Amino acid sequence: MLTWEGRAELSNIADLNQLKVELNRLPAVDVGDYIVEQPIEKRAIAFRLLNKDQAIAVFEYLPSEVQEELIEALHATQVCQIVEAMSPDDRVELFDELPAKVVKRLLQQLSPEERQVTATILGYPEGTAGRVMTTKYVRLQQGLTIGEALNKIRRYDEDKETIYYAYVTDENRKLVRVVSLRQLLFTIPEAYVRDVASDRVVKVKTETPQEEVAQIMKRYDLIALPVVDREDKLVGIVTIDDVVDILEEEATEDIQKLAGVSGGDEAALSPPQVTLRKRFPWLLANIGLYVGAASAIAPFQQVISVVPVLAVIMPILSNTSGNVAIQALSVTVRGLGVGEVTPKDTFKILRKEILAGLGTSVGLGLSLGILSLIWSPPQERWVAIVAALVMAVNVFVAASMGTVLPMGLKRLKLDPALISGPLLTTLLDAVGFLTFLTLISVALKIFR
Amino acid sequence: MLTWEGRAELSNIADLNQLKVELNRLPAVDVGDYIVEQPIEKRAIAFRLLNKDQAIAVFEYLPSEVQEELIEALHATQVCQIVEAMSPDDRVELFDELPAKVVKRLLQQLSPEERQVTATILGYPEGTAGRVMTTKYVRLQQGLTIGEALNKIRRYDEDKETIYYAYVTDENRKLVRVVSLRQLLFTIPEAYVRDVASDRVVKVKTETPQEEVAQIMKRYDLIALPVVDREDKLVGIVTIDDVVDILEEEATEDIQKLAGVSGGDEAALSPPQVTLRKRFPWLLANIGLYVGAASAIAPFQQVISVVPVLAVIMPILSNTSGNVAIQALSVTVRGLGVGEVTPKDTFKILRKEILAGLGTSVGLGLSLGILSLIWSPPQERWVAIVAALVMAVNVFVAASMGTVLPMGLKRLKLDPALISGPLLTTLLDAVGFLTFLTLISVALKIFR
Repeated sequence: MLTWEGRAELSNIADLNQLKVELNRLPAVDVGDYIVEQPIEKRAIAFRLLNKDQAIAVFEYLPSEVQEELIEALHATQVCQIVEAMSPDDRVELFDELPAKVVKRLLQQLSPEERQVTATILGYPEGTAGRVMTTKYVRLQQGLTIGEALNKIRRYDEDKETIYYAYVTDENRKLVRVVSLRQLLFTIPEAYVRDVASDRVVKVKTETPQEEVAQIMKRYDLIALPVVDREDKLVGIVTIDDVVDILEEEATEDIQKLAGVSGGDEAALSPPQVTLRKRFPWLLANIGLYVGAASAIAPFQQVISVVPVLAVIMPILSNTSGNVAIQALSVTVRGLGVGEVTPKDTFKILRKEILAGLGTSVGLGLSLGILSLIWSPPQERWVAIVAALVMAVNVFVAASMGTVLPMGLKRLKLDPALISGPLLTTLLDAVGFLTFLTLISVALKIFR
Repeated sequence: MLTWEGRAELSNIADLNQLKVELNRLPAVDVGDYIVEQPIEKRAIAFRLLNKDQAIAVFEYLPSEVQEELIEALHATQVCQIVEAMSPDDRVELFDELPAKVVKRLLQQLSPEERQVTATILGYPEGTAGRVMTTKYVRLQQGLTIGEALNKIRRYDEDKETIYYAYVTDENRKLVRVVSLRQLLFTIPEAYVRDVASDRVVKVKTETPQEEVAQIMKRYDLIALPVVDREDKLVGIVTIDDVVDILEEEATEDIQKLAGVSGGDEAALSPPQVTLRKRFPWLLANIGLYVGAASAIAPFQQVISVVPVLAVIMPILSNTSGNVAIQALSVTVRGLGVGEVTPKDTFKILRKEILAGLGTSVGLGLSLGILSLIWSPPQERWVAIVAALVMAVNVFVAASMGTVLPMGLKRLKLDPALISGPLLTTLLDAVGFLTFLTLISVALKIFR
């Protein structure tokens, strides 16, 4: 974990009063880490040293199991205060993790306003804009002057998640314009908001998937993005800090799914049983699948015992075409992930893979041919030709499949990372082995 | 490419005046895409329709080859104006791509101030905070009141990259405090800046690697991060939009390097020759390496022709332990990439992998044992025991190596993604095949 230079000091402070001062000055995320590092029985004690604002800020940074611990350990009034003051999106994240009974109790203790906001966000499906948004945004009326708008923000909007954008709505709460605080500050106070605010608002719907939200904010370099309902009414905003987390999460998922970790969300330090659960079922399923590929070899045991050099060539064939497939797969899945390509580019990207694949397959086919020539006994030199040929074709198929399959999944609105590297290599092995051994059997009859 | 709903309209506009109006209203990134989609000869024409501010904004979003084209096609004065107005970090990015001759000419035409700033940034190594920072930040003197500070910002800081943070420096330009525009707005104008500004400034040095910059900004939810030189003097800031790009870039690199794409920066739509260049050398090297693994088999051809079921078992052994290695590798590399683990967690993460690896290896060893039992002819049932044993050991080694190797590379301050999945699987195959066949040979002598 990256820590900021000031952090190390904390563990050396013996005096409780001084610790209290420090804990209330340090960035909330560092204090959060400090609390997590304490033994369980000391966490609540450390937390009670925080003043109200810092307690709220720190609480939002704690992992959910520690939040849950503290909810049990702290006085009910303090818990109430914290949960009431949390930003709605963080509160929903917390509620997602807590036992239903605790959530129910906490919901009852919330103010009617916050309770309603929380219920609304909880009503949107996980992974959508509606679920990651916050309802604490700055709203302006159309008719205000800039001076009036700035006064309004100063007076009423201190609790908003960001004040760097203000959203202009009409009498039906429909989102019509957006203006940045920057624009407000650099325009004369007598001008009207509607004259500086832009009417080309980049926005998303509550049901927009979070990856898309992140890609849009990245594309337009936004710090916040408004979320509207089906009637185009403004219901919330998504802020850049959430987007950074979403982008990282999505990349992690892509990497892990490509490697065959189920769900794609294993933390590096998750407990061994979680690791086992996320990896083993897939490995077992893959062995099952691979039995298919290997069964393709089983009927040819006779051939192999006659031409044992095949046992040397086959792993190379399998390994190399597997690598080609994984290269193509990872470039394509990532391209889709960052929004660099969409299914409509299938032909463009396939054309590229085919051209590059041709070069690769000729080069690798020749390489294996030469190697086979060296390894084979004189009477089986013909094996080299078959090996070169099958390698070339298999490599070509590998590059194409590594591209076409994720593009196809995406087109079907499925997750392109569903086709993991190992799954694809297993399929390629099944086909490759079968082709290779069949051709060898045929050649055996001709040449012997 | 994600596009905003307004985009599609552009291609339908026949009237040049209306196109001009639209091009000047749309977000710069969309106009950039529109220009890139035009045939080369029309790009400069479209670009000339933009007014000065929009031209500058759009230019920064264009890919470097199009920027280069426009520099040749546009009038020298307009080029001058644009390059002068670009933000320093974008200008440096442009200069990195242009031929040295053109850079020299453009540098000469810059104002002395901008020329110096550009030279400074160009002086820092690529991939460091100094190279990605901008020098357009808001600086405040210690003694100002908040009202005075706001007036200063309004009057002098319209050209700054962000005004949402202001940095307070002392008489030696040393960075002493930071204050957000939000804090300035919500405090009475008579208060002093130094009383609201925090003296616990999260900052980085010019030589800090860009990944670390990104991780720090993510950790502290910052919109901008100050960069100081060795004497702690403020020299620039890194803004969140650059950080989002850095995080995506780093994730892409990790994914592609794990898959054995050299450099890890192949674009999904790069030309076929680039694809070939980024993938083929590595594939060839891997075949070379794999010859080592396969050579481990070659001396055992005699054994294989006696026990051909080995040719069925060996691919499963290789494939499965390869998968186990890739799972562990990708979780570890990603954990290091997002700063979730550091080399000091090596023991913790290894302990987890060993515990989970034990479960996996018992499960998979048994599976292969049972399968081998089914496939082997009655007189060779003992093969199943050797297969199960070697599988179990190999899987265990695979999980450990997939964890230890990237952690070790990171500890040596090397890139943990240097050890790609295919490289590791090749190594595992070499060791696995050799062990397996040696044990089988020994067993053959005993059982037959």
